[in-house]
Order: sequence, then structure tokens, then C-alpha cells
Amino acid sequence: MNYRMLGYLLGIIMLIEAALMVLPLITAAIYGESVLPFLITMAILLVIAAPLVLFKPKNTRIYAKEGFVTAASAWLILSVFGALPFMFSGAIPHFIDAFFEIVSGFTTTGSSILKEVESLPKGILFWRSFSHWVGGMGVLVFMLAILPADNGHAMHLLRAEVPGPTKDKIVPKMRHTALILYTIYFCLTIVLIVALLFTGMPLFDSLVNSFAVAGTGGFSVKNASIGAYNNPAAEWVMGIFMVVFGVNFNMYFLLLMKRFKDVLKNEELRAFLLICITATVAIAINTRSYYPSLGDTVRTAFFQVTAIISTAGFATTNFDLWPSFSKTILLLLMILGSSAGSTAGGMKISRVLLVFKNIFRNIKQMARPRSVNIVRMDGDPVTIDTLRATTNYVSIYFAWLAISVLLISLDGFDFETNFSAALTCLSNVGPGFSVVGPTGNFSGFSYFSKLLLSFSMLVGRLEFMPMLILFSPATWRKN
Amino acid sequence: MNYRMLGYLLGIIMLIEAALMVLPLITAAIYGESVLPFLITMAILLVIAAPLVLFKPKNTRIYAKEGFVTAASAWLILSVFGALPFMFSGAIPHFIDAFFEIVSGFTTTGSSILKEVESLPKGILFWRSFSHWVGGMGVLVFMLAILPADNGHAMHLLRAEVPGPTKDKIVPKMRHTALILYTIYFCLTIVLIVALLFTGMPLFDSLVNSFAVAGTGGFSVKNASIGAYNNPAAEWVMGIFMVVFGVNFNMYFLLLMKRFKDVLKNEELRAFLLICITATVAIAINTRSYYPSLGDTVRTAFFQVTAIISTAGFATTNFDLWPSFSKTILLLLMILGSSAGSTAGGMKISRVLLVFKNIFRNIKQMARPRSVNIVRMDGDPVTIDTLRATTNYVSIYFAWLAISVLLISLDGFDFETNFSAALTCLSNVGPGFSVVGPTGNFSGFSYFSKLLLSFSMLVGRLEFMPMLILFSPATWRKN
Repeated sequence: MNYRMLGYLLGIIMLIEAALMVLPLITAAIYGESVLPFLITMAILLVIAAPLVLFKPKNTRIYAKEGFVTAASAWLILSVFGALPFMFSGAIPHFIDAFFEIVSGFTTTGSSILKEVESLPKGILFWRSFSHWVGGMGVLVFMLAILPADNGHAMHLLRAEVPGPTKDKIVPKMRHTALILYTIYFCLTIVLIVALLFTGMPLFDSLVNSFAVAGTGGFSVKNASIGAYNNPAAEWVMGIFMVVFGVNFNMYFLLLMKRFKDVLKNEELRAFLLICITATVAIAINTRSYYPSLGDTVRTAFFQVTAIISTAGFATTNFDLWPSFSKTILLLLMILGSSAGSTAGGMKISRVLLVFKNIFRNIKQMARPRSVNIVRMDGDPVTIDTLRATTNYVSIYFAWLAISVLLISLDGFDFETNFSAALTCLSNVGPGFSVVGPTGNFSGFSYFSKLLLSFSMLVGRLEFMPMLILFSPATWRKN
Repeated sequence: MNYRMLGYLLGIIMLIEAALMVLPLITAAIYGESVLPFLITMAILLVIAAPLVLFKPKNTRIYAKEGFVTAASAWLILSVFGALPFMFSGAIPHFIDAFFEIVSGFTTTGSSILKEVESLPKGILFWRSFSHWVGGMGVLVFMLAILPADNGHAMHLLRAEVPGPTKDKIVPKMRHTALILYTIYFCLTIVLIVALLFTGMPLFDSLVNSFAVAGTGGFSVKNASIGAYNNPAAEWVMGIFMVVFGVNFNMYFLLLMKRFKDVLKNEELRAFLLICITATVAIAINTRSYYPSLGDTVRTAFFQVTAIISTAGFATTNFDLWPSFSKTILLLLMILGSSAGSTAGGMKISRVLLVFKNIFRNIKQMARPRSVNIVRMDGDPVTIDTLRATTNYVSIYFAWLAISVLLISLDGFDFETNFSAALTCLSNVGPGFSVVGPTGNFSGFSYFSKLLLSFSMLVGRLEFMPMLILFSPATWRKN
């Protein structure tokens, strides 16, 4: 373990966090609120980071293991310090509550322990929503984009933070890739902000909602989430952009390169769009009697489907009251999530596609033993290793889900609450059903459960391995 | 596809079913009930089976695919004809209801569409419970035990019907093995019947309850299940025997061979017993205030834990009213099930052990890339193929569960009902929670859902591949 390099990288992450806090600080200043919560946190970050960063280690080489450990510790450190402004401002007095809230922010989950948000200072609301934008594309990716780095450790950091099972994770010229990703992310966010302003949404709300959509987070500055605006145009815009941010960012890169054919034949993208349309139609038919007009029904169904599948988790309706077929569709979308290489959570569509292709391949192989059956994705054969990694992922996902449902059931809530709470946190969605439904929140859980669910969000965002390796004794044992 | 051999084997299965119906027929005669429902069914079976069996094909060779197809068709045919006595007697007029009930019997699930059982004719009740005993060890195994067969096709049939992921599936001398398995099964059942008679349980009830325990089925002849007897001694006896029948039958074989060390070091057995004890203690603590004495609490917790983990599914209490922690434990036990090579359902403990060992191996391998980490079971290395088959099984299990929860949610029941109903059928347990809890039943589901759940029970009992291959177009396509 290259401890000095680990410390150096974590120091840089802390400096970046301090720099990012300038924006909420300015917001607080504009609205005449106290800037102290941010100033004090920034000072703490600088004091701790300075000695770590001042002496750059000579040996900057890091390996896969250190990449995972760096990513996991970076996200933990970001969250611990990111929670401080909530505490210093008095908005969320208890550390575990504040930690849950900011982890939910950075991991772009959007689950909240707050019963009421509209009375919070604007600077705090800005920080809360901005954490979605920061966490969406990833802080390590951000660091790679702004710092010169050798490709060796860049690859390991990128691998640890960018979600998904595909080969596209490993690209040459890491810094270049990170820069392109952030540029696309930035531009799409700007377009969204402008579009929301055009629908008549106030500037502050357009900004924070855009952060939350871009990161597919789901924190809102209204108690009734997006439903509070009564703004159908904004709902359509946000719905469409939740789809946009649920797409693998490589697709936008390919579009820029004018490789339209590659985009059109991308199976994950086609499956994603097909699922969005099918789920919207099914829910619209199933909930037709719940809304005054067909237009309202379709818009609400579309918004809710895109909000859940993108794992943003906004709400324009209390979908907890929907018929159980529609609720079950949403629940499955929570497990599914969107594309690999997007800002969304969940299992990722490409993984689930691979699982089903693998199942059908095995049946076919058994039915016709002498035939040659290869699983293909976008026309290319998928290696046995990728398939194994995928089914491994499925088994660890459900093992984690099962254990966390059991542990939070100690708080005594009903099964629907426990199951959907554990699921929505692991998949980084935000709301669940029943007690944690769109009109509810996570405040009723014990501190133990809140810590566990915070850890689930981190584990889900980083796709298990980084966090598990950080906490594995084998990682820290001497040879 | 060797169609003639397939037809021949299915004919034999039908003859066996006709022969098995002699017992409920005698029961009906003893109680002075009409024997016609059984006589007519037996006649139908004989008429159809005769031409199939009379001409034994010259080419008796079958391959893995035909083994799966035979197993799947045998179970479907058994169920279709096994449902007829329910219809002919008027006990269950609709075919789909009767089919659901007998599939639930043969697959040793024990889910019922009957709202009331105590008024049914004794012959019908006998057939219903006896189907558990028949399905527990498997009809193909029974056929192998009584018929001379060459090892080639015996292996493929045994593989398709005996549950579990272990190497023990493939044993030399198939007929010998099948005979030993059935002898152990038969003797253990006799011991149980005698033990229940000693607790003061009436003969008829001792018989049918022993069938249900031995097959880990769970059908009861009382509306309040085993709770109706108010017989603590019988509850202890049944609880202990549910553990006995949840153990891999190879263990009893090893005991007979006096290979005690092999039994003691068996990891699945140790995990099984440890889980039974831990779950009992946890539930007893959690439900202490629900029962008058500590003895009642422990007995009820032990009975319910063994009833669920063995996937028998009896009840001595309405566990749907338990605190959610205890309910969640039961739910996880439903997924888990008992040992491979037992009569129980679920994922099987050895599979779940392998899943966790595989997860820990992958973490260790990542944390110490240059170390050699091999997954071991009972001290022997587990092959990559076995691990892959295991994670494949997990992914198909949850994919099937997710899709069936979605489809039955069309009936509009709550999520807890839908999830537990789909789960309890797939794992061959019996009861679930809420509407399908221990005091409820499956009568409220639509015929579509009942058919789907019947299919889930068959798929779960045969562990996916046989049923999926039977219904795969690739199986039936010409070269």
C-alpha cells in the first residue's frame, strides 16, 4: 500500500471539496445568510489537507487495490466533511443525520431525513443539491480532469468510480477522457438550467433542480418535490433530461464523433428507451382513473418512470397510492437503474441484459449441446470473465439487500418500508414506499439503520468492491 | 430427441401414479367414501399409459437434454392427472385450482387454494398429503429404485430431479443409490409416524402429517395447521423431524457407513444447524412477550423456524402478527431453504454458502492480487464451473422472482402478499405473509396467477433447467 500517495490524493480531494464550497458560500452571502458554516468547514479542510498535499511523494505509482482504497476513502472523507455545514448551520444537528443526508447527496440517492426543507437556508439547500452534481460524475473523475496524472493510477481511479460492467471503463488517455466526460456533463447541465428557466421556474430552483437531475440525485427544495411547482412544462423537461442523464456518456461522445451508427446499434441504449416507453404506457393504462385527463396521466407516468429508472427519485405524485402493478413496476425499475457510464445507480441495464442473455444462452446450450452459443453485446462476444463478474455482482447485490433488510427490520417498520428503504438506498434512487414513500422520509429510522443505509448508498454508488476492499482485513494485513 | 424412450418413461410414470392411488382409494373405502374419483383416474392413466409402455424402444439411450425433458414432462403429467381426483370428488371443482393444489402437493410446497379442509373426504385428504411424500424424494428417483436401468440415462434423470449444486449428484451405480435413498426415506418416515402416535396424535393424522413432514410439504388436515392439535410433544417431534428431512440424505448414508468424521466436517450440515439455532434464539428473544411462558416461546420459535427453513411451511402460530424482525428472518429462511440432496426447497444452504465464499474470495483476491485464493467446500476445492453455475442460479432465481412478483401484482394485492406469495411458491415453502399468511390462502388470486405460481413451484422444485428446457423452442427445433 502506497500510503503517502493515498494521503496525497485524499489531500487533493479535500482541497477540491473546500473549493466546491465557495459556491454555496456565495449563495449564502447573496441571501444574507451566515457564511460561517462553510468558512469553518473550508478552514478545517485546508488545515488537514495542507500537510498532505505539500509534499508530493516521489513514488506516485498505485495499483488496482490502492485505486479502490483511494476511491472508497475519498467518498468517506468527502461525506464526513461535507456533513459539517449541515451541523454548523444548525439545519441538521446530529452528525449521523447530517452524514446520512450528505452521503445521500454525494451518492446521488436523494433519500432524506428532513421532514421539512423549505425553511432551510438557501446556502445549505444549495450545498445539499450541489452535492448531487459533484457526486454524479464523480470527484475522482473531476480530479483526473483538472490534474495532470499518469495513466497508470488514473485508470485504477476511474475504474473504481465510474459505474458499469463494460469494457469501456478502460480507455486510453484517462485525463482526456475525464475532461471530455466533465465537459459533456457541464454543457448538458447548462442546457437544462436554461430550459427550466424558460418554463418559468425561478433561477435558484432551476439551478438546484438541474444539479439534482444531472446527478440523478433527487433532492428537492420543496416539501412536495417537483409536484410543488404545478409546472407541466418543467415536468416534461426534467423527465426528458432524466432520460438524457441515464444514458451512457460514451453515447454523447460518439455523437460528437458523428458515429451515429454505433449509437443506434447500442443495445443498452435501445433497451433503456424501450423500458422507459413500455413502463410509461403500462403505468398510464394502470393509473388512468387516478388523474383528470389523459395528458396528466401520461405526463405523470412518464415523469415517475424516468425519475425512478434514472434513480433520481423525484416525485410529482404520491405514487405510494398507485395500484400495486404500477408500484411493482417502479420497484423493479429501482433494482434495474439506468445505463453503465451514466450518473444513475441501480444494477445497470447492461448488467441485467447480460444476466438474461446468459440465462438464455445456458438454456440453449443445454437444449442443443453441440451448438456453439456465445453471449454477444452490441455484436461483440462477451467474455466468460465479464459474465462471471456480472453474475457475481447480482449475487452480492441481493446478498447485501437481504442482510440490510434484515438489520433495519429491527426498527419495527413494515416489510414494504424495510424492503424499499434498503433497495432505494442501495440503488441510489431516493424514495421507497410506505413510511419512506414520496411523502415520507427516513427520519424515523434508528441511528444504526441510518448508518447502515448510508453505507449501503456508498456501496451502491461505488459498486461494492471499493468499499468492501477498504474494510477487508486482508487489505491491511502485512505480508 | 429419443421420443419413443420419452414416451416409454412417461408411461411408466403414469403407471406408478395409478399404483400410488391405491392407498388413498383404500383410505376412502375404509371411511366409507366414494372410491370412484380414484378408480376413474386410475382407469384413465392405465388406458393412456398401456400403449406407451407395451412397446419398449430398442434404443434406450437418453442424454442430458432428454433427462431434463423427461423430468419436466413427468412432473407436469403427474400433476395434470393427480388433479383429477380433486375434481371428480367435487372437492375442488375448477381444474386450475385442482392443478395448483396438486402441484403444490407434489412439489412439496403446501400452498393451498382451499379455505377450509376439515370437511373434505379422508381419501382426498390422504391423496393431498401423500403427494408430498411422493414428490419429496422424487418420482423419477422412485422409478430408478424399482426398475432396472442402465446408468447412462439413470444419471441424467437423477441429475434433473435431485436438488442441489454439489458433486454428490453424480454417483456411480444409480439404481443402488436410488434404492438406498428411498430406503432411508421410508424408514425415517416410519419412525416419525410411530413417534407422532406416541404423542397421542390419531393414526390418520400421524400418517398424513408424517407424509407432509418427510416431503417437507406442509399440507395439513386441520384449518389451523399443526396449531390445531395443541400438542407440544407433537410440535417438538415434528420440529426435530423437519430438521432431519432438511439434511442432505448423503449424511444418513455416511452415518450408515460409520463415516462420522465426514458428517461432522460437512459444512452445509453445520451451517444448517447453526442457522436453525441462531434463528430460533433470535426469534424467541424477539417474540418473548407474545407467549405466556418461555417454553411456549422457544417451542413456537423452533417449530416455525424449522417449518420455514425446511420449506415444509406448517404453522403453530399466526407468525404474520410477529414483529417485523422475526418476519424478516422467516422471509430470508424462505429464500435460503435447507440442504442440497434433501426433500427441502429454496436456494439450498450449500449454494448460499458458495455465494458468500465466492464474494469473500473475490474481495481477498482484489486486496491481495498475488495471493492464491481458492473457494473450498468441506476442504475440497470448488471448481470455477460450479461457482459459475451457482451465481447463474442466483441470478435466474431472482430474475424469476422479480418477474412473477410483477405479474401477480396485476391482481392488486399488497406488496408483502405478492412478494411472499411468489417467493413461497418458488422456494416450495407454502405460506407467505399478509393475504397468504398462515391463516390465509391462495384462493383470491386470479387463474392466471394460480397457473403462474403453479409453474413457479415446478420450476423451483426442479431447479429451473428441466422446465425451461422443456419450454425452450431450441429443444424442439429440427437440426
